Amino acid sequence: MSRKTLRVSKIKNGTVIDHITGGHALDVIKILGITGHVDGVVTVAINVPSKKLDTKDMVKIEGRELKAEEVDKIALLAPHATINIVRNYKVVDKQRVKLPSVIREIVRCANPACISNSKEPVQPTFYVDSEEPLRIRCHYCGYIMEKQDVLKQF
Amino acid sequence: MSRKTLRVSKIKNGTVIDHITGGHALDVIKILGITGHVDGVVTVAINVPSKKLDTKDMVKIEGRELKAEEVDKIALLAPHATINIVRNYKVVDKQRVKLPSVIREIVRCANPACISNSKEPVQPTFYVDSEEPLRIRCHYCGYIMEKQDVLKQF
Repeated sequence: MSRKTLRVSKIKNGTVIDHITGGHALDVIKILGITGHVDGVVTVAINVPSKKLDTKDMVKIEGRELKAEEVDKIALLAPHATINIVRNYKVVDKQRVKLPSVIREIVRCANPACISNSKEPVQPTFYVDSEEPLRIRCHYCGYIMEKQDVLKQF
Repeated sequence: MSRKTLRVSKIKNGTVIDHITGGHALDVIKILGITGHVDGVVTVAINVPSKKLDTKDMVKIEGRELKAEEVDKIALLAPHATINIVRNYKVVDKQRVKLPSVIREIVRCANPACISNSKEPVQPTFYVDSEEPLRIRCHYCGYIMEKQDVLKQF
């Protein structure tokens, strides 16, 4: 990649989330709880021309290595993303996010009448009907949730 | 500035919003209506160490030159920002945003009972009590609005 197309520079330590579907970086930031009022440096590139995808977004979070449950959340919004953990400018771990066919615990059902929103000891569970655009279906009440419903919870 | 601290690369054509108060870039993006689902490339750097400010944010919008009324909106959230219009990698216009002492038209009063929210032909008007943190006071009803109240309108 030539210098001119490298819109955001390399980072020393932290996490690089690459191959986010074009236009979705701000959603990924939201789901990670990055409001801007954080300590570390975060750089974002939106709608960058890409070989794999038409356009892609990228997020670089300096000084923070994402945890597995955070990576799972990203899969909901950016199913093609790759996560690189960087230490001393070197990628020490590279993984693709993967949306499981059954999702547990990450999101709540948006249907207030669903039993999973009552006081019963019931674990929120969804089936993935479609990855992109996202459509997940509640195991208990059949309610269908889309990306905007998921984003409201973060 | 050395290459290593230049976190976001130069752009060919467009607008560079620099010296945004650290942590406020995402608010600036929101007030400009950039949801990510736009055509052009946008790069953002959050919490970058700065000489002038403790930390600063920066937004680069490729292929779009901000209009005067957009610059005025930015002043509400980032009163120290500088706006550079770039053509063919050269800065052709550089200006500091300026929050006027009286604000007209940009925002509406958040008090639903205010006469400026009725059908009367009344122009929303606010006095700036404080720039940072933002506090603006409605000319008609005295209602005080802060940054979060302003952001809700965009």
